[in-house]
Amino acid sequence: MNLVEHDRAGYATALEQARLGAGEGGVPIGSSLFENGVMLGAGRNRRVQNGDPTAHGEIDALRNAGRRASYAGTTLYSTLAPCAMCAGSIILFGIRRVVVGEEKNFPGELELLRSRGVEVVVIDDPKATALMEDFTTRNPGLWNEDIGVDEAQPDPAQ
Amino acid sequence: MNLVEHDRAGYATALEQARLGAGEGGVPIGSSLFENGVMLGAGRNRRVQNGDPTAHGEIDALRNAGRRASYAGTTLYSTLAPCAMCAGSIILFGIRRVVVGEEKNFPGELELLRSRGVEVVVIDDPKATALMEDFTTRNPGLWNEDIGVDEAQPDPAQ
Repeated sequence: MNLVEHDRAGYATALEQARLGAGEGGVPIGSSLFENGVMLGAGRNRRVQNGDPTAHGEIDALRNAGRRASYAGTTLYSTLAPCAMCAGSIILFGIRRVVVGEEKNFPGELELLRSRGVEVVVIDDPKATALMEDFTTRNPGLWNEDIGVDEAQPDPAQ
Repeated sequence: MNLVEHDRAGYATALEQARLGAGEGGVPIGSSLFENGVMLGAGRNRRVQNGDPTAHGEIDALRNAGRRASYAGTTLYSTLAPCAMCAGSIILFGIRRVVVGEEKNFPGELELLRSRGVEVVVIDDPKATALMEDFTTRNPGLWNEDIGVDEAQPDPAQ
């Protein structure tokens, strides 16, 4: 796995955010944006907390990092594989490196990221997997809502 | 062009939002989400107004529409071709139809949308094109920031 020393702090921040979200009754996915070991922003899924369907962890972290003219040299951390919206934000802003906690609970759009030249590192962190597994088992409807799986449709968009 | 009667109101709302954004000194891109002629939400790019890089028009509209279990039957309107992040949000939530004002000032990710089964209708509205052309001519740096073009990099991510 192509981890660097700085990744420890970046990923720990994302995992802490996921746990904060779990404590708030939210979807437990956390994220952070770092540049050379310095945190630019952190966030967590706030669909439940803010009633905001676009507030995925990565979007929240990018929002909290604020306006930037350049994302060169930044790494985005997320406890879960980014969905199409969050992968799209990574592509849009030219973030070149993404470190992902796990992809077992959701495959995300890792291939789309790679096809656009983004380096994707999957840690395969059992703590992140357990956190999400516990959440999706207890809250299948909320989880489907968050990833756009329409329970009323025979052929969901996902 | 495959426009339906409801599209008039949906697109007019998006264009009105773009003009509101222009009046606020923001990036003049507006969006709306409609279902069978009923508005679910509208929004505009608020990068400047809120200091939020993720507040593209489409994201703002989806945020304002709030939480939904299903986007079946909805159409998203945007005055400009959606970027990777906004296209990703359309894919994530299973929005099946997108009506776009113009793609001359920004090609966006229309092919990605089509490749995922989304119906994309481009109106080619000269009012939307003129609004963006005026903005990008006056504010090239701000526009580059909004679409992730890093002026310091020889090979930008876009």
